[in-house]
Amino acid sequence: MTVDIPAKFQGFGVHDKEHWSEPKFVEYTPKKVLPHDVVLKNICNGLCGTDIHTLKANWSPLKRDDLVVGHEIIGTVIAVGDEVTQVKVGDRVGIGACASSCRSCTRCQEENEQYCHKSVSTYNSIDHFADNYVTQGGYASHSIANEQFVFPIPDGLDSVSAAPLMCAGLTVYSPIVRNLKKIGKKEPVVGIIGLGGLGHLAVQFASALGAKVTVFSRSNAKKDEAFQLGGHEFIATGVEKDWTTKYQDNFDFILNCASGIDGLNLNDYLSVLKVDGRFVSVGLPPVKDTFEVTPFSFLKNAGSFGSSLLGSKAEALEMLQLAADKGIKPWVEEIPISEKAVNEALNRCDQGDVRYRFVFTDYDKAFTN
Amino acid sequence: MTVDIPAKFQGFGVHDKEHWSEPKFVEYTPKKVLPHDVVLKNICNGLCGTDIHTLKANWSPLKRDDLVVGHEIIGTVIAVGDEVTQVKVGDRVGIGACASSCRSCTRCQEENEQYCHKSVSTYNSIDHFADNYVTQGGYASHSIANEQFVFPIPDGLDSVSAAPLMCAGLTVYSPIVRNLKKIGKKEPVVGIIGLGGLGHLAVQFASALGAKVTVFSRSNAKKDEAFQLGGHEFIATGVEKDWTTKYQDNFDFILNCASGIDGLNLNDYLSVLKVDGRFVSVGLPPVKDTFEVTPFSFLKNAGSFGSSLLGSKAEALEMLQLAADKGIKPWVEEIPISEKAVNEALNRCDQGDVRYRFVFTDYDKAFTN
Repeated sequence: MTVDIPAKFQGFGVHDKEHWSEPKFVEYTPKKVLPHDVVLKNICNGLCGTDIHTLKANWSPLKRDDLVVGHEIIGTVIAVGDEVTQVKVGDRVGIGACASSCRSCTRCQEENEQYCHKSVSTYNSIDHFADNYVTQGGYASHSIANEQFVFPIPDGLDSVSAAPLMCAGLTVYSPIVRNLKKIGKKEPVVGIIGLGGLGHLAVQFASALGAKVTVFSRSNAKKDEAFQLGGHEFIATGVEKDWTTKYQDNFDFILNCASGIDGLNLNDYLSVLKVDGRFVSVGLPPVKDTFEVTPFSFLKNAGSFGSSLLGSKAEALEMLQLAADKGIKPWVEEIPISEKAVNEALNRCDQGDVRYRFVFTDYDKAFTN
Repeated sequence: MTVDIPAKFQGFGVHDKEHWSEPKFVEYTPKKVLPHDVVLKNICNGLCGTDIHTLKANWSPLKRDDLVVGHEIIGTVIAVGDEVTQVKVGDRVGIGACASSCRSCTRCQEENEQYCHKSVSTYNSIDHFADNYVTQGGYASHSIANEQFVFPIPDGLDSVSAAPLMCAGLTVYSPIVRNLKKIGKKEPVVGIIGLGGLGHLAVQFASALGAKVTVFSRSNAKKDEAFQLGGHEFIATGVEKDWTTKYQDNFDFILNCASGIDGLNLNDYLSVLKVDGRFVSVGLPPVKDTFEVTPFSFLKNAGSFGSSLLGSKAEALEMLQLAADKGIKPWVEEIPISEKAVNEALNRCDQGDVRYRFVFTDYDKAFTN
């Protein structure tokens, strides 16, 4: 089975959080290939905000001194474990933010494998199924994941467009589709907060799924883009001071895609929900940032606040087919991968200077293995 | 229509928040009877925690200097407005915490009238449908409410048992029944936090509706009672230190019925939810008390935090019939109403010294009108 797997993988790794945006070319020993694992030779990889949070150690410490991030990976299958049935050598596939799980618990068996208590993140995670190997991400020549977390890419979708769907796309698609199912209306009213890497995909997916979509942004700067992406209304919350009055009792579902929570007045958003409306936040701030809520915040409409993590493989496959069928694509700036390019892209993304997603390309030139 | 309505109603009113537990006998002019209003001669009234919060001005100032609280009212209809169709003179009925609404908005028309933006609370609320009269509650000889908020009491349910169902009962019944419908399982796993006025009814209703019910309490003091009420498991959170590990991924729905939030670790409860589980708080703390949450708190199971307000008339009628059919009753300590008795009951309830609900009775002896 394990043919053509190089002894060392190559990637761009960060030594410590003080130099979070200065990855160096590194070579490292790959994790061992388990019976359900799939090995990819990578084609490209999207830059996700989580890469930056991780490298800055905003959520947890760096677990190795050559940490390679990246979890929007597209590649070609070059080898599979003995028990793999879902993909085969030669397939073009993707890997998102989760690389493995127990596959036997209730969550794994009920298409919620991303919530498995034993799940292993694609990078900076201790893989207890593989000798506690600390996982490495997709700013690298190759990647390995359990087949449950390896998603075949439809022919109608190019690799660069597919990459950001692996994390950003699935992260918004899953809560949108789950909540729209619950709402069960023909034209549910959905709000999307923040037009960035997550939000610009959320607007497209919600609109494609039949929702009436309102985009919330602080200023009017992205108004035209909101409509281009399929939004039906636009609210500049920093400009339209009376928007909460105007939109009272309006929204079935609001998805927060903004990563910071500074200046985001949760009570304002909760006040415009319909009865039993839900506010779900997929934007993740540094852990020290908290919202303060009281039961009163939710009393006027039985609303709720929650979150959501990635999506299931079943949802990933649905999403990819929907994207291929309806021409849904992230807006991407392509960057040939190199030490310098990764440095620049990380810094620009950290400053919000991207509309709306970087994808690292030209892997065949950067890596020699 | 308006026959036998006294010119003055009698009640026990509080002058200011400093003397919150010292109501005096008062007489006051009733609000005018509108075409859809129903006038009750009261039989009895339950003491609700909201009465205390209101009298202490925890949530908002006292809006009159003879404020009569009480919103678990049972009485006999003595007069009805010209357009009333839902009840008739002579009926035994109840009024809960809401007395009126616009009856024309979407919420009113979709059986969510308790969430109407123009709703009027039973007491200490400005009734903008009736010349801005400040409403008076049920520690009084008579009450008036819009027929939508007047609930006929089934014959199989005595008045004293029915009273606490008007607020406490409906407040827990509505979120339980709405969430159980959404969960859609045969034996959903439900947690009830706090065995008090709300919680002891929540345990009975959830159990009667087919849930597997776990009662959370700080100590083991109420363990036997939890099982008597229909609970199937009991967790003393202050004693069983490892309960979050033991009950990981266990609950479809948790209803918080504790009024204080001191020592209630929200993250602990969120951690034991199943995927997409909901934590709903109907216990209301003073407004200054807040929970701190971050999207991370909800990330491991896509859980959510929310609240719920009272219930619809449709739910009230279902609940009352269920209570009559299954013998669900609040555990009540009856107190003949008087200045002294109300003072004692308010103070005892404030100190948690009641299992589990006071009902003021003997109205015919206290009031002469």
